[in-house]
Amino acid sequence: MTALIGIDWGTTSFRAWRMGPGGEVLETVSDGPGILAAGALPGGFAQALRDRIGGWLDGAPVIASGMITSRNGWVETPYLPLPLDANALAAGLTLHDGIHFVTGAVSDPDGPAPDVMRGEETEIIGHLAAGGGEGLFVLPGTHSKWARAEGGRLVAFRTVMTGEVFAALRDHTILGRLIQPGPDSQSAFRRGVQAGRQDGALLGRIFSARTLALMDRLAPDQIADYLSGLLIGDEVAHGVQDAAAGPVTIIGRGDLAVRYRMALAEMGIAAKIAPPGMARQGLWEIARLRGLA
Amino acid sequence: MTALIGIDWGTTSFRAWRMGPGGEVLETVSDGPGILAAGALPGGFAQALRDRIGGWLDGAPVIASGMITSRNGWVETPYLPLPLDANALAAGLTLHDGIHFVTGAVSDPDGPAPDVMRGEETEIIGHLAAGGGEGLFVLPGTHSKWARAEGGRLVAFRTVMTGEVFAALRDHTILGRLIQPGPDSQSAFRRGVQAGRQDGALLGRIFSARTLALMDRLAPDQIADYLSGLLIGDEVAHGVQDAAAGPVTIIGRGDLAVRYRMALAEMGIAAKIAPPGMARQGLWEIARLRGLA
Repeated sequence: MTALIGIDWGTTSFRAWRMGPGGEVLETVSDGPGILAAGALPGGFAQALRDRIGGWLDGAPVIASGMITSRNGWVETPYLPLPLDANALAAGLTLHDGIHFVTGAVSDPDGPAPDVMRGEETEIIGHLAAGGGEGLFVLPGTHSKWARAEGGRLVAFRTVMTGEVFAALRDHTILGRLIQPGPDSQSAFRRGVQAGRQDGALLGRIFSARTLALMDRLAPDQIADYLSGLLIGDEVAHGVQDAAAGPVTIIGRGDLAVRYRMALAEMGIAAKIAPPGMARQGLWEIARLRGLA
Repeated sequence: MTALIGIDWGTTSFRAWRMGPGGEVLETVSDGPGILAAGALPGGFAQALRDRIGGWLDGAPVIASGMITSRNGWVETPYLPLPLDANALAAGLTLHDGIHFVTGAVSDPDGPAPDVMRGEETEIIGHLAAGGGEGLFVLPGTHSKWARAEGGRLVAFRTVMTGEVFAALRDHTILGRLIQPGPDSQSAFRRGVQAGRQDGALLGRIFSARTLALMDRLAPDQIADYLSGLLIGDEVAHGVQDAAAGPVTIIGRGDLAVRYRMALAEMGIAAKIAPPGMARQGLWEIARLRGLA
């Protein structure tokens, strides 16, 4: 029996879970269309939902989080302010076309550098609900999020555009000209991290990805890993500046999560990669608090 | 009578001067092909030279500086180490195809972040030779150079890829999506400078160019100026960190030089824009010390 259907619907990703009465996973779909692709379908998001999980839709409540509530999503919902806990997210659910949408969070909305997230708040709430602990979090990605949770609440976060800027530098600046593909090089990545954690203008330090290669001190098939390490190193060095002694929790998957753990280790900072399923656990917790599950 | 022909030959620019016995300018060409365009001609650089200033070539010595001595130029010459003065540049001239090429400079060649320049050293030497004073220099451009001159010598420099990264962010990341063209906005530029001089990861702070626009706190036709100010503000804040009390000298032209002066003024730092002709004066000084003029 289906108790809840949860969806983590991002710009380029769609993951859905059919859950039973205790929140246990009965079925999973992880290759649905992101909102860019789904929004372009003739039947839009509703069609994408029917195509991918139509067989699940038997009356059980559906809850969704992520960029699906952004301007380009199914319904645009307002951001909730910090500090933010699971109860506030449950109270802030938006029912639209039969789906309960979890809205995003805003940091410093009236200040000089407002920041926003949609989806990561649910993953962090899931981590807290699963007893995974509080403190400093990083959620690596095209746009990384650094977040802090205290007292069961999300209290601060910051977006860093590392992934997207890496791709733009690699594909559209002189730094990419000498790059040749090759196997992953952990040593080049670590060398980049050490360059990334130095002081000085970041847009100056990245130039070493070219000069070292020009001087035959960095092999063409190591430039990309070096540059990746440099950008992630800069991000991590800033991200942990106000970190307490506790370890950093990485919420993410695969190679990217491992890279962030490696960068943190280079700086002597312990990090653990959260087990998978944080988004699903957050959706379950928010639905439960709202009485949906 | 022609005493010397000087050429400042960059990646996308070609400027040449025919000078008389006192170094005075007799004729100027400022719209020749840069090395990318010239190198692609059937007759290469020699043809470009004949096409543009063939009438000047009557036996007078020709001296050239800039990216023309790089791997993609007419002849690749080794870099000279710091500290570097006009005599070392004169002694290091490379005669090739009848032209005296001024070679570039290298900073920290064996260190973790080597840096290089080709052409800017000649402009700084020109500034010193003209009695323009020493101290901290910035030469804005696709790749800005920050340099320090003391005791008649170039003693340190750093490349910052601000111009090229600005274009990559504008044209190839989410930051460009909301941008609309409009008249220059000094207020948006200044606001960006203030965001750029703050602490924190640069790749986090740039995200405000999107969030402020999403929240209708930055007009679509002001985003580009704000982002430009943010990147230049970050560059300038780092560039002046170890500056002495003296003013910063900007060697550059037009709108970009004015933008840097504005960014420095925002931080309470006096700056003067050097008069035009620094490259020509440097070429003259180097040729004179070599006995060519």
